[in-house]
Amino acid sequence: MRINRKRLVADLSRLVQIPSWEECDTIARDVVAALREAGARDAHIDKAGNVIGSLGRGGAGLLLNAHLDTVPPGDYAGDPYSGKVSAGKLLGRGASDDKGQMLTHLKSVEAWMATEGRLPMNLKFLIEGEEECGGHGTAEYVDSHRDRLACDCVVVSDSAQFGPGKPAITCGLRGIAYCELLLKGPNRDLHSGSFGGGVANPANALARMLASLIDDRGRIQIPGFYDDVVPLTEKQRARFAELPHDEAEYKKGIGVSDLAGEEGFTTLERLWARPTFDTCGLWSGYQGEGAKTVLPSLAGAKISFRLVPNQLPEKIVEGLRRKLAEVCPPGIQMELIVHHGARGVLVPEDGPYTQAAARAIEEAFGVAPFYTREGGSIPICVTFSEALGVDTLLLGCATPTGPGSCDLRYSFVVRQTGDAGWQIAIRKN
Amino acid sequence: MRINRKRLVADLSRLVQIPSWEECDTIARDVVAALREAGARDAHIDKAGNVIGSLGRGGAGLLLNAHLDTVPPGDYAGDPYSGKVSAGKLLGRGASDDKGQMLTHLKSVEAWMATEGRLPMNLKFLIEGEEECGGHGTAEYVDSHRDRLACDCVVVSDSAQFGPGKPAITCGLRGIAYCELLLKGPNRDLHSGSFGGGVANPANALARMLASLIDDRGRIQIPGFYDDVVPLTEKQRARFAELPHDEAEYKKGIGVSDLAGEEGFTTLERLWARPTFDTCGLWSGYQGEGAKTVLPSLAGAKISFRLVPNQLPEKIVEGLRRKLAEVCPPGIQMELIVHHGARGVLVPEDGPYTQAAARAIEEAFGVAPFYTREGGSIPICVTFSEALGVDTLLLGCATPTGPGSCDLRYSFVVRQTGDAGWQIAIRKN
Repeated sequence: MRINRKRLVADLSRLVQIPSWEECDTIARDVVAALREAGARDAHIDKAGNVIGSLGRGGAGLLLNAHLDTVPPGDYAGDPYSGKVSAGKLLGRGASDDKGQMLTHLKSVEAWMATEGRLPMNLKFLIEGEEECGGHGTAEYVDSHRDRLACDCVVVSDSAQFGPGKPAITCGLRGIAYCELLLKGPNRDLHSGSFGGGVANPANALARMLASLIDDRGRIQIPGFYDDVVPLTEKQRARFAELPHDEAEYKKGIGVSDLAGEEGFTTLERLWARPTFDTCGLWSGYQGEGAKTVLPSLAGAKISFRLVPNQLPEKIVEGLRRKLAEVCPPGIQMELIVHHGARGVLVPEDGPYTQAAARAIEEAFGVAPFYTREGGSIPICVTFSEALGVDTLLLGCATPTGPGSCDLRYSFVVRQTGDAGWQIAIRKN
Repeated sequence: MRINRKRLVADLSRLVQIPSWEECDTIARDVVAALREAGARDAHIDKAGNVIGSLGRGGAGLLLNAHLDTVPPGDYAGDPYSGKVSAGKLLGRGASDDKGQMLTHLKSVEAWMATEGRLPMNLKFLIEGEEECGGHGTAEYVDSHRDRLACDCVVVSDSAQFGPGKPAITCGLRGIAYCELLLKGPNRDLHSGSFGGGVANPANALARMLASLIDDRGRIQIPGFYDDVVPLTEKQRARFAELPHDEAEYKKGIGVSDLAGEEGFTTLERLWARPTFDTCGLWSGYQGEGAKTVLPSLAGAKISFRLVPNQLPEKIVEGLRRKLAEVCPPGIQMELIVHHGARGVLVPEDGPYTQAAARAIEEAFGVAPFYTREGGSIPICVTFSEALGVDTLLLGCATPTGPGSCDLRYSFVVRQTGDAGWQIAIRKN
């Protein structure tokens, strides 16, 4: 039973047109109204901007999680709040991440109510208002409302299909440890002629220190870094290898001649199941046009480690701190600021919830889902695990086609199946 | 015979108050007028903004070189064109570098004319108008006016005393090779979660490549880099060691706990007689507040090598290019832009001009000069050597007390001595 597609697209378009970087409140009020309309009389906005509500009947049931904020307009090519459809894609910040996916939940509820008159289970909603800005409000809310949010499983819709027409269940997420390294040399920028060679240069030191963190085989050189890494099983490697990953297409998409990474692993293994070290930002001295002969006073870097289960961010940061202190040269003062950390997540591929989702997807799509992972981090999943003691099922319907667009070749589809009563899926149009 | 100090200070103050970053022409016209007043009927401004003129009689004589432009106001603390005297220093951009020193020449001529009625030798003037901006106009002028500028020796007054009351003859300058290294990875900034570990990161690559250029003993790792370095003689090392260099004071002045540099050399040796590698600028990815999980598309660095005789900048750049190409990882495109290069300069300490200057300084100051070097570069000295076939005598009277101030504890002094007829010196008040 397919839901009126035109109306759904119009609803998503309207949501995307709300500039959510400034107007999260407007969207939050819309979502509260939609939930109340569906019967969730307790729907409200909490003080951190999250929308909370519950619906249905029965036991603990499912907690549905999405987010209504978006990243800033940034360098979005075109109108970031367009909401217009072009070449089968609805364009705008948040169309897929995550307004479109949030709508999957809301429209599924609507469809159930319209076709069945009642939900097949208890549903709870936690729609975040500050997911993209890394706020801690949601984690604190979850931690302090364990009873209210008690559930059998959390469904998060902030992930992607493997590709168009290739639905996926994301069974793993990487964690993260994100730090900032600040180096201070002389008390002011010096002339590189008058002082060069006699004074430690913090930009030289930064290069040396960052280079010391990873070798030319892509192995991170922090003692103990790999100690807690859960290795891929042969079965998992075989599953990854079976995925229709097109290496040539992948390189073309990002415009590189060669891929690179840790020796001994395939691209998907590197992206999904191996930890990384990436310098996310660098700055020092003179960055303008032409030449300026500066021996800089300061140099800095933003650095991130993507982690995999069971690496602990705190332990990684401690190892990093020790390593950097060892290689920091005389005459340079070092400061390491920890911005945030999160552990990685693994969801059992053959667990009951994953398998129920797989059956539902297969019935709706006509094809079995791929079991994939995602290289990014969704720290709230760790909070769900710790505070509520449940696994998270990552059932994203976004297509990995670049930022800020939602592929409309798929409709929201809701079907009731025998044992997987909570089926929330999408269908190819 | 001491020249009226008050008038000299007023003249310098007036020159410093002219914002020479915008109004070089005004100063140039002043200098032309001063030279014409002294009798240089050929004084004029050439098309590159240099002031040219000649005076006196006899053989080839001396070419006096200085510059009338200054560096931009930049981060000058206070009014960069103040011209006011505070705590014995005349403040403002160019007070010492190089308006004050240029005035040494002009006022010396004035004094000779007032006291002797004629100059003891032929004098030629080349006062540069674009020394600080690295313009090529002066070098081209020198190259194409070899006959007009023919001389026995060039006197450049763009260097410093060793310290207050410690007059010096600068017998060496370092050269330079200044380049910009640009690395390109993916065609846009990527999410470090989704792509990290599978794609070469240009910021990581930049760190690795820069770190590969120098080892932890401060030795530059470009093959052949040291091949042409003229080593310090034992006599030169002994002379450096005798200089009253206060290491504790030096560290305090620049605010560092430890000095650093090439193993096996003292600070003065490192600063004056050994080549260096300094990263002058770095940039990549996210440089703002907090955390952004970016795998950057681009990374860049400004890098400079200070060279010593007989290193050739072109040869150093070629070695650098080969080395960088070797260590540039797959998936990264590299571009190396050469901004400028200059060879180092050595003036024989016991040559006739150096020794004549030493005698003159000793007579005027009452102390023998120190034989020093300078870590910076004055590329025009190389041009003088190549185009005119003569050495350059660096007779600076600035005090190394920070940028944009001139110590007024010294007066311009002119005395005629028996064999050093061209004495141009300063005296402690």
